[in-house]
Amino acid sequence: MVVENGTMSKPGFSYVITAQAATGRAHCARIETPHGIIETPNFIFCATHGAIKSATMEQMEAVGAQFLLGNTYHLWLQPGYEIVAKHGGLHRFIGWNGPLLTDSGGFQIFSLTYGRVVDEIKGKVHRSKFPKSLLSITEEGALFRSHIDGRQRWLTPEKSIEIQQGLGADFILPLDECAPSHFNKEKTAQSMYRSHRWETRSLQYFQEHFTDRQCMYGIVQGGEFLDLRRESIDFINQQPFFAQALGGSLGIEKAQMYELVDGIMQRLVSRPTHLLGIGGLRDILEGVQSGVDTFDCVHPTRIARHGCALIARPEAEYAKEHINLKNAVYREDQNPIETDCDCYTCRNFTRAYLHHLFKAHEGTGGLLLTIHNARFMMRWMAAIRQAIQLGQWEVFYRQHRRR
Amino acid sequence: MVVENGTMSKPGFSYVITAQAATGRAHCARIETPHGIIETPNFIFCATHGAIKSATMEQMEAVGAQFLLGNTYHLWLQPGYEIVAKHGGLHRFIGWNGPLLTDSGGFQIFSLTYGRVVDEIKGKVHRSKFPKSLLSITEEGALFRSHIDGRQRWLTPEKSIEIQQGLGADFILPLDECAPSHFNKEKTAQSMYRSHRWETRSLQYFQEHFTDRQCMYGIVQGGEFLDLRRESIDFINQQPFFAQALGGSLGIEKAQMYELVDGIMQRLVSRPTHLLGIGGLRDILEGVQSGVDTFDCVHPTRIARHGCALIARPEAEYAKEHINLKNAVYREDQNPIETDCDCYTCRNFTRAYLHHLFKAHEGTGGLLLTIHNARFMMRWMAAIRQAIQLGQWEVFYRQHRRR
Repeated sequence: MVVENGTMSKPGFSYVITAQAATGRAHCARIETPHGIIETPNFIFCATHGAIKSATMEQMEAVGAQFLLGNTYHLWLQPGYEIVAKHGGLHRFIGWNGPLLTDSGGFQIFSLTYGRVVDEIKGKVHRSKFPKSLLSITEEGALFRSHIDGRQRWLTPEKSIEIQQGLGADFILPLDECAPSHFNKEKTAQSMYRSHRWETRSLQYFQEHFTDRQCMYGIVQGGEFLDLRRESIDFINQQPFFAQALGGSLGIEKAQMYELVDGIMQRLVSRPTHLLGIGGLRDILEGVQSGVDTFDCVHPTRIARHGCALIARPEAEYAKEHINLKNAVYREDQNPIETDCDCYTCRNFTRAYLHHLFKAHEGTGGLLLTIHNARFMMRWMAAIRQAIQLGQWEVFYRQHRRR
Repeated sequence: MVVENGTMSKPGFSYVITAQAATGRAHCARIETPHGIIETPNFIFCATHGAIKSATMEQMEAVGAQFLLGNTYHLWLQPGYEIVAKHGGLHRFIGWNGPLLTDSGGFQIFSLTYGRVVDEIKGKVHRSKFPKSLLSITEEGALFRSHIDGRQRWLTPEKSIEIQQGLGADFILPLDECAPSHFNKEKTAQSMYRSHRWETRSLQYFQEHFTDRQCMYGIVQGGEFLDLRRESIDFINQQPFFAQALGGSLGIEKAQMYELVDGIMQRLVSRPTHLLGIGGLRDILEGVQSGVDTFDCVHPTRIARHGCALIARPEAEYAKEHINLKNAVYREDQNPIETDCDCYTCRNFTRAYLHHLFKAHEGTGGLLLTIHNARFMMRWMAAIRQAIQLGQWEVFYRQHRRR
């Protein structure tokens, strides 16, 4: 199957469904890029500043990672996209030769005013002499104060694309307004219409500054309101985006989110589809069932640095999907994190050793858990793909949903 | 040439000189252990808590590291040697299958009272509820307060060997008293005689609790006083140690240290010889010239975490042996740290990228510089060995000494 609706077709980019579940929309696909193939369903790791916190790109390749995400906001302010561009783009700069995605930079800026906490940034706010702040939002764009040098800067749809073209990731996102969950329907609708206008401007700038090395995602907005989401979907479906992402608030309750995502996926045309910022194991299961291709979340690499290892239930603590290796119960535990895991950490180290590293404040503990958690995610995605390919998705889905 | 003076010979351990400079005592040797060969001259990396800070053992193997050092003091208090022993020893616990050395634990304890700053520990003192402190030194041993749980503990020669046998490194050190540089000759002599008595007790305990998987180093004391050093050498030469280390104060001025080390090496019998805690590039050059086999220092891995990369002169800043990648001059520098370095970092990343990682407080910067600095040390040691093997040591020595 080939992409639809007048999508700009570029050499080296394609999207092909390779397997489909017997019922529902769960599927496997191959997204081809100039930097290699992404097999979906898959997970995108966050390289916020152009690095996976605590691990090298070589180690990410070794765990089977296929797709990374860099943050435009962070890379714009430090080191600046001009320096990245002089290196020949983000791939060369960060030493990752596989597929890359950059976001628009909007999420980080809007999350300041709207009070949505971007945990990954939180630490920086305290360190900075210049607290980040959004100064105003107009039809033109967003004016904010850099947390690095205190300078005022405009992020507009055109500026976002200019930066992302300088960064040169395979996939880029248009600027949208990230409306928070406490917006009522009217405000959410206004925000959505502005997002559509900004996405149109983003796309126009992108088309005027043609490159055959990048393709663009569209972003569906509309908050928790399915009728607004339908309007947004109809808009996105008609634009020549190569792919699409689900943005904005999807509700506070998990059940509500799963239902909303499913409703959205019913109506979207068949293009590579990314669920922004969502990546719990159960979330991924439900997302795949609804037809989503890719997921991203800082969770696996972030909890690694705090001593937590992803692990298959039922052993995981408190109905979570991980164990905390700092707990005294692991002090003498000579087992690997998971006996059936093939990662470097599980092949070589016991839980007692990892417990010890965190007790001794050794950074290598975070590195070893990052390797495990990244590998865990890759094994989870591979298991999902295999279930779909072998025609066993329905069984797999029901089995893991229950746990 | 085989080890002399009634050294306990154990299967799997040997020391063979493989090349000798035409003049002087510089030489290459092979130290055989049950966990592999150490080619000397070589550098020992510090795995204080059983981990190289910021890098995995796999990455240390990749740079060519052959020999690691674990600290008995740290591993005794956290996780405790009993847990390491239950794992089958330090090799298995830390995932390093090559040669390992542990120290006696004395250095860390004595450095408290005597005011010698052990930089590597300094950070921990601030974090701890229980400041480490040495409570008393008697003929029996040293009583101190653990910085982890506040408990009082005795470190005696016998206890040190018991712990080190539990840890199971290939090489272990006897307990000695580390006299500081401000001791006068009389106090240094008293301390040296006590060290000799403690070394004798250490050796006796070691022989009574026989293992054919470990060999012991003797430690030459005597501070800056060559006549005391000669007494200590005569004592060590007569004991059946497999190898020997130069401990205690070697003077404050570098020139004084080089002269003293040379004086000591003249008189010592031919055994594997380690220079404790010394590892600057020039120090290594002079030590090799005097006949030293191995060196250790936290410097290469510690400065890496602070943004500094070892580099061949003359580019190194301020007549130091490194550059500080946090300096603004590297902001747009598209060169690798060293163009002729074959490490992962130099093959894949520019100075501008590394500069960016430190500016963005990304821990991966420390990891990438640790890889480079460790590889730099391995290349430096290999260059020294090659010069000796090719009969070009005198030229190499004169050339690098001048710079």
